[in-house]
Amino acid sequence: MKPHGPIPPGFRADASHMLLIGGDRAEALADVSGDTPLFVYDSAMLTARVAEWRAAMPADVQLHYAMKANPYAPLLAFMVRLVDGFDVASGGELKAALASGMPAGDISFAGPGKRDRELEATITAGATLNLESVGEAERALSIAGHLGLTPSLAVRVNPDFDLKGSGMKMGGGAKPFGVDATEVPALVRRLIDAGADWQGFHIFAGSQALDAAAIADTQAQTVALAARLANEIGAMPPLVNLGGGMGVPYFPGDKPVDVIAVGAALAETLAARDPVLAKSHFAMELGRWLVAEAGVYLTRIVDRKTSHGETFLVTDGGLHHQLAASGNFGTVIRRNYPIAVAGAFGREPDETVSVVGCLCTPLDRLGDQVALPRADVGDLIAIFLAGAYGASASPATFLGQGPAREMLV
Amino acid sequence: MKPHGPIPPGFRADASHMLLIGGDRAEALADVSGDTPLFVYDSAMLTARVAEWRAAMPADVQLHYAMKANPYAPLLAFMVRLVDGFDVASGGELKAALASGMPAGDISFAGPGKRDRELEATITAGATLNLESVGEAERALSIAGHLGLTPSLAVRVNPDFDLKGSGMKMGGGAKPFGVDATEVPALVRRLIDAGADWQGFHIFAGSQALDAAAIADTQAQTVALAARLANEIGAMPPLVNLGGGMGVPYFPGDKPVDVIAVGAALAETLAARDPVLAKSHFAMELGRWLVAEAGVYLTRIVDRKTSHGETFLVTDGGLHHQLAASGNFGTVIRRNYPIAVAGAFGREPDETVSVVGCLCTPLDRLGDQVALPRADVGDLIAIFLAGAYGASASPATFLGQGPAREMLV
Repeated sequence: MKPHGPIPPGFRADASHMLLIGGDRAEALADVSGDTPLFVYDSAMLTARVAEWRAAMPADVQLHYAMKANPYAPLLAFMVRLVDGFDVASGGELKAALASGMPAGDISFAGPGKRDRELEATITAGATLNLESVGEAERALSIAGHLGLTPSLAVRVNPDFDLKGSGMKMGGGAKPFGVDATEVPALVRRLIDAGADWQGFHIFAGSQALDAAAIADTQAQTVALAARLANEIGAMPPLVNLGGGMGVPYFPGDKPVDVIAVGAALAETLAARDPVLAKSHFAMELGRWLVAEAGVYLTRIVDRKTSHGETFLVTDGGLHHQLAASGNFGTVIRRNYPIAVAGAFGREPDETVSVVGCLCTPLDRLGDQVALPRADVGDLIAIFLAGAYGASASPATFLGQGPAREMLV
Repeated sequence: MKPHGPIPPGFRADASHMLLIGGDRAEALADVSGDTPLFVYDSAMLTARVAEWRAAMPADVQLHYAMKANPYAPLLAFMVRLVDGFDVASGGELKAALASGMPAGDISFAGPGKRDRELEATITAGATLNLESVGEAERALSIAGHLGLTPSLAVRVNPDFDLKGSGMKMGGGAKPFGVDATEVPALVRRLIDAGADWQGFHIFAGSQALDAAAIADTQAQTVALAARLANEIGAMPPLVNLGGGMGVPYFPGDKPVDVIAVGAALAETLAARDPVLAKSHFAMELGRWLVAEAGVYLTRIVDRKTSHGETFLVTDGGLHHQLAASGNFGTVIRRNYPIAVAGAFGREPDETVSVVGCLCTPLDRLGDQVALPRADVGDLIAIFLAGAYGASASPATFLGQGPAREMLV
């Protein structure tokens, strides 16, 4: 038997032990959607998550949603009302963000390989470009000149530090992201001299960290770096995007981020900030932390079989929808995401089984030797933490399958 | 500097050092396709590959194409004329195989999670089901009964051995694939008694092996297992699908499979086979080996930048099209696929660079600290071995991107 990650708080079952999502029975949701596999996103959990963040953070810090975590259109439209801005990572995401109703002025675009047509679309829409290099800055200025528009330009800074304990480091050394801190002042002066509307800094040191102290320390370093750069430039950055970094507990032993502690530390950091930043606005940019726990992936068992004494539950889902949960997306050691039998939620385990997907490859494993209540053909398996980097981050067409259904409840 | 894998033989450049694919200049192909990134598949290389296999193998062994490796419709239509059958892994692939013009009688469907509607579609079409479990066999018989049709049924056997040195083991112990060998005779008798058209065995021990001796040894064990099962059953299997197993050299130090040696050993194995298999047909099922080398992924440089002394070439492609090449698809240690500057093909390297994709994630790296000739914004990067498990095995919609273009030349 191998352990699985902790089931996010807030999920419960009805009297028959059927998992409820947003108050609806998992089986009923599968019925309504017409088929499985199915991603269900709980809007009440999204609302609660944002409220938790706002209660913990200083009142004047803005919350941006990094839509790469989950670009499902109804979820985007719901998030518009909850957050202060969207961060996009491509021309495609820009289109989706605009279609969601988010005002262009509250959208910013970061990404290392922006094509000319993406720069043009962003400038035309009036969204902000987080510039990733001197070359990209020159292309943006040139395109804005041709368009006769004043571009909104921020500079993404490659910080000299990383986020300790983060699952993905995006600073501290040679990186494809942003402009090395030493080159930033000259670039900002160039933007200002060229008549651009300079929006400030975007500084993203890492993501998927669970240690509040590490996050707080990185935020303090980020504010200090922004102040140092602003003093060198001799101008106040209108906005300092502090990046994200707050992760979620996927695996056994993982603990949730202490958001209150992060907020308290950030309040102290901002209270003590350099006068050059006195009138700057600050934002955090969160993706995974906002949406991961609100999502559940439901997949139906199509076969139950025994091989050499081991029991396999074969489902109609798999890594084509849940690449990260299968342990195959940039993971060194495969560990089990939180998993349950939807119709026996909260029941004690009866047996040790492996839950596999329907793809004809040994990579397609959703739960490896997990202890679960007895489940049979036709029963639903629930995989949690499916709200972020699930549907859109998986190879949906692999082996002739196709995308899963999605639903916001 | 880190090495990259060997560029497949057969690629060359014109006098200006522009890479040729199927005789066409890489730049011209990108122009014709209208945009990058672009997968180009060379039909002449497909033809040559099949000819190489046929020259090496005993004349009566059939060649099946496992279309999961590359389901691009024009490529499928081309393969119809070259091979003796298609192996599919889903209802979606079955549809594509039928649309390609392959006769239903030459299509077989293996996959551990077949849904009832997929069983029905296969039986209705007259293709063969490779049964993965006793439960699936009963569902298939029941559906065939309701349809009033005689189903073509083979049994996928979970062998007691694996393919030594294979990248993916699909036998030897508890597996979600196939029926444990000990249970096969009773199941086959059940199929015959129920009036099904029993087609034989499908035995797939592993894939992506480069050692001819290991492949030959596995094929000998596979034929012996088929004979043992046939004798227990007391009936001749019409077809024994020996699986695949032949891999391609992706990484530094990898050597191609010695196909002549595999063919010679298989000829000996078949010559010495048990009389119960005297009139059986045999097939090999190959995916990656047939198509990987024929494919090149072309992606254009959109930024060239330096960070902390390291040079990055940022391209318009990335892991959303080339998940495996980025090292993120079930890989423990990231290594570089063969890579080149298309417009300087065959030139000596000038510098060490990292080639990254356009996605805003540190996972998106196509070449890590590789030695390449000088390349600038607008130049094309070529990633080789892109013919298998590229476009269809990558998360095309990630970060709002979309699928790459594809072209058969």
